[in-house]
Amino acid sequence: MSQIYNFYAGPAVIAKEVLERAKEELLDFRGTGMSVLEISHRAKAFDDVMVEVEANVKQLLGLGDDYRVLFLQGGASTQFSMVPMNFLPEGRTADYIVTGSWSQKALKEAKKIGSTHVVFDDSENNFRRVPQQEELQFSEDPVYVHMTTNNTIYGTEFHTIPQVNAPLVADMSSDIMARPIDAEKFSLIYAGAQKNLGPAGVTVVIIKKDFLDTAQEVNATMLKYATHAEKNSLYNTPPCFSIYMVNLVCQWILEQGGLKAMEAKNRRKAQYLYDAIDQSNGYYIGHAEKDSRSLMNVTFTMANSDLEKEFVAEGEAQGFIGIKGHRSVGGLRASIYNAMPEEGAKALAQFMADFQAKH
Amino acid sequence: MSQIYNFYAGPAVIAKEVLERAKEELLDFRGTGMSVLEISHRAKAFDDVMVEVEANVKQLLGLGDDYRVLFLQGGASTQFSMVPMNFLPEGRTADYIVTGSWSQKALKEAKKIGSTHVVFDDSENNFRRVPQQEELQFSEDPVYVHMTTNNTIYGTEFHTIPQVNAPLVADMSSDIMARPIDAEKFSLIYAGAQKNLGPAGVTVVIIKKDFLDTAQEVNATMLKYATHAEKNSLYNTPPCFSIYMVNLVCQWILEQGGLKAMEAKNRRKAQYLYDAIDQSNGYYIGHAEKDSRSLMNVTFTMANSDLEKEFVAEGEAQGFIGIKGHRSVGGLRASIYNAMPEEGAKALAQFMADFQAKH
Repeated sequence: MSQIYNFYAGPAVIAKEVLERAKEELLDFRGTGMSVLEISHRAKAFDDVMVEVEANVKQLLGLGDDYRVLFLQGGASTQFSMVPMNFLPEGRTADYIVTGSWSQKALKEAKKIGSTHVVFDDSENNFRRVPQQEELQFSEDPVYVHMTTNNTIYGTEFHTIPQVNAPLVADMSSDIMARPIDAEKFSLIYAGAQKNLGPAGVTVVIIKKDFLDTAQEVNATMLKYATHAEKNSLYNTPPCFSIYMVNLVCQWILEQGGLKAMEAKNRRKAQYLYDAIDQSNGYYIGHAEKDSRSLMNVTFTMANSDLEKEFVAEGEAQGFIGIKGHRSVGGLRASIYNAMPEEGAKALAQFMADFQAKH
Repeated sequence: MSQIYNFYAGPAVIAKEVLERAKEELLDFRGTGMSVLEISHRAKAFDDVMVEVEANVKQLLGLGDDYRVLFLQGGASTQFSMVPMNFLPEGRTADYIVTGSWSQKALKEAKKIGSTHVVFDDSENNFRRVPQQEELQFSEDPVYVHMTTNNTIYGTEFHTIPQVNAPLVADMSSDIMARPIDAEKFSLIYAGAQKNLGPAGVTVVIIKKDFLDTAQEVNATMLKYATHAEKNSLYNTPPCFSIYMVNLVCQWILEQGGLKAMEAKNRRKAQYLYDAIDQSNGYYIGHAEKDSRSLMNVTFTMANSDLEKEFVAEGEAQGFIGIKGHRSVGGLRASIYNAMPEEGAKALAQFMADFQAKH
């Protein structure tokens, strides 16, 4: 096996340059003589990382002082509860746009906490698309609207931000930093790091200060956003190494030319794979409707599961790792986050053509 | 500066051998051609880690199949809420032994959830000691008894496990794996990893199965122990790298001779420093009463804060890092967890004598 390409959906590929940098300084972090794995979160050298990473996230997303960036634990799954605990008071309703399994899970947790309204739910159609603006039937005065910008499992993605007359909350775990977005349209963005931002173990929460000010009291101190905002994410020991890695990834994105450069590369990578599907005369069947196709997760099926198994096995033998689809959709999935090199997507597209010719 | 000794209270020193192993395999995890930072938590190679680490934790603590080991996020601070959410039903009372700031915080979160009873609280005395058995006045039928085995901030530690007629729950964040304990006396043990187990970012929860079976329903899926037990800590993406590091640390402890060897080494290290205090004729004043002294955190003050500042500054210049005391106690604190080499404690004791002679 000469070259490995990591198509896992998350934890996912991290840029070689970032991994090499982490390796290089693993035993001596910024001249401290200690590893970043063993340095106190109160040490000056680590505090510098906290300041840098908040600034880098804001710079990449074009956000100013009216936003805070928090580094929490527990993944997006914990955010599913934290969002309604903090922002869904009794007597109000939160609207949920349901475009996949993760939206469903977010809705399920919110329902346990308060009143919810489902704006759109395409589960009957196995989530092949995201809604058009005119399909969105909001409740009268939602306290917030929740959406999932990219649906990892189904391979669909919003290409425009819905127009909403309420604070917009988004799970961006799988497409944050993949392209420029108008981040100011969101009152709260959350993202598990393990797709586009770094390794697993930290959840980035970007929150508008005036939205944070509307939060209600929460029973558990650790589940209050205010706890972490007041202490700059150092209320208790944060996941230092994962935060350090997010900082390295942000620096890498900036060095690559920022989100515009990411988008251009991501579009080229996606094009290779969607072309391979579209030019296969139905040998590969795309799961997502064309208008809703994700730039991050390319999902497709084949005539039968035996053939799919063969595709996965032969692909793995050739170094294409993690291309089996999620059990909810079956088939295949190639996740091509920011750190997937263009050659990886190109090579997989070539493999798809070769496999078709052979079988 | 020739040699650095890391006395931080947490995140804290990690054994050189462990850091070197992590560095060595950072770009190629077990022959996968990928980093452990970017491999899927569903990949076989990572699943092997999960199986190994649960087995290693159990082996070190002498626990069998009637216990589960979970790898969660959010630190001990999240456990402060999870424990009562899962195990303190309406109409019952939970007993708290309050021996320091962390016990106080645990109690504070429990109070928000249900009825509590304070068994012992030495805050008036600034937590210089842990209680004797006869001082423990439990409530009539506590649903559980909560204790903190080692008090990082005050430098006190239980040297015998209290006798309790209820499930015993312990925050062992700062002394887990420091010596052999009768772990079967506990129904639930939790520990943030960043002191004796590895880097920050994972919380190890050891739970007796029959205690877990008594848990009540919890509103947030992620805060239910059962969620994580049923899915072997893979309900959502776990903090993979931190778990991998905990596994390396467990392997290292086993290679060193297990908990007996750790205890012997830890006692020698503590002896150097307590001797330095006791033989200083009151120049260094130990915070903890002698019977309650911690093997992990040696706390002491000096005649005045100017002298303490000078001690910290001169110490740092000589490579003794992180010896400033916590703001609650002031003064100095040397944390000498498992990974602190014996020479480190010896060198600090020598520095204390030299400093005294000089000033």
